[in-house]
Amino acid sequence: METRERVVRAALRTLADDGFAATSARAIARRGGFAPGVIYYHFDDLEHLLLAALDWTSERRLARYRDELAGVTSAAELLGRLRSLYVEDLAGGHVAAVQELVAGAASSPRLGPAIVERLRPWLELTEEVARGFLAATPLEPVVPAPSLGLAVVAMYLGLETLTHLDRSRSPAESLFASAGPAAALFDGLLGRGGATA
Amino acid sequence: METRERVVRAALRTLADDGFAATSARAIARRGGFAPGVIYYHFDDLEHLLLAALDWTSERRLARYRDELAGVTSAAELLGRLRSLYVEDLAGGHVAAVQELVAGAASSPRLGPAIVERLRPWLELTEEVARGFLAATPLEPVVPAPSLGLAVVAMYLGLETLTHLDRSRSPAESLFASAGPAAALFDGLLGRGGATA
Repeated sequence: METRERVVRAALRTLADDGFAATSARAIARRGGFAPGVIYYHFDDLEHLLLAALDWTSERRLARYRDELAGVTSAAELLGRLRSLYVEDLAGGHVAAVQELVAGAASSPRLGPAIVERLRPWLELTEEVARGFLAATPLEPVVPAPSLGLAVVAMYLGLETLTHLDRSRSPAESLFASAGPAAALFDGLLGRGGATA
Repeated sequence: METRERVVRAALRTLADDGFAATSARAIARRGGFAPGVIYYHFDDLEHLLLAALDWTSERRLARYRDELAGVTSAAELLGRLRSLYVEDLAGGHVAAVQELVAGAASSPRLGPAIVERLRPWLELTEEVARGFLAATPLEPVVPAPSLGLAVVAMYLGLETLTHLDRSRSPAESLFASAGPAAALFDGLLGRGGATA
């Protein structure tokens, strides 16, 4: 593995496991098995490394979401895939790392806008999926896809926060589970039962 | 004003204005114009004071939401009221204080579950409003009100996070603005145009 990627992955793992406050250059270097100086060879400062770590996990997760959601035409299928993807988000430390960065942004004025900026491709993907689902339904003229996309991204962010605040519960899981009948109704009404699994 | 309330309000204002990391007993005391010892006369430790501050703002905002949403029967009216309430949430520092506490929970293991616990009355209110809106619609049998409530609370939390991360934009405002036509369609379909304003 390239050294830069080793540094990025060590930073991500430290964020997810130890939290923002404990994610020092020293802690990242210890986790990755390299000297702290290696960090500053590749990155201007710790904040740049943390944003590179966010880019790394965000791009990989986004690619997974794009792959899994491409060609999905039924709401039931969409729901099932989102549920599996969310389990991956949790297991891989993506949710924890993102939430720790969001928390850390409270003590770093540059971090907040940089994180919001990195949500843009997620908004675009969500908008694209929303557009496909709204197409040719009575909702199409009254629900703007960008707004629906924003609402869904905000809901995900909030669910991640709830999950991260209290790791003993899993609000997202209960939400996915209870959305099944609504997805089936949507598919039934619009004749979208045929999933392209 | 009772001393305890002065302490609570000073804590809230310090959280909202200075952020979690800067909210020390000394900073709160300076803001409120009392000696730091006053805090420890009323509260076991800083964390208890911060949770009391969350209770204080949450109860007041919840009472406002209950008052404003009682008797609302049309989606257009609901949307208009939620929009005004959110403006109040922002202006009064409620959003900033809550978001700072959520961020602070990353460095305090007891804080996270305590914050989630305090969301319960919000979930109940949202569920109650959702139940009223789903009643006698085709969605009633397939959309469980508790799930819809959770989804809405999560979306609010996420919108607050986005707003707090990048104060130069206002995603919530754009969402409220673009939801108007969908609310009107809902009211039109269900004959709920008559608001009880």
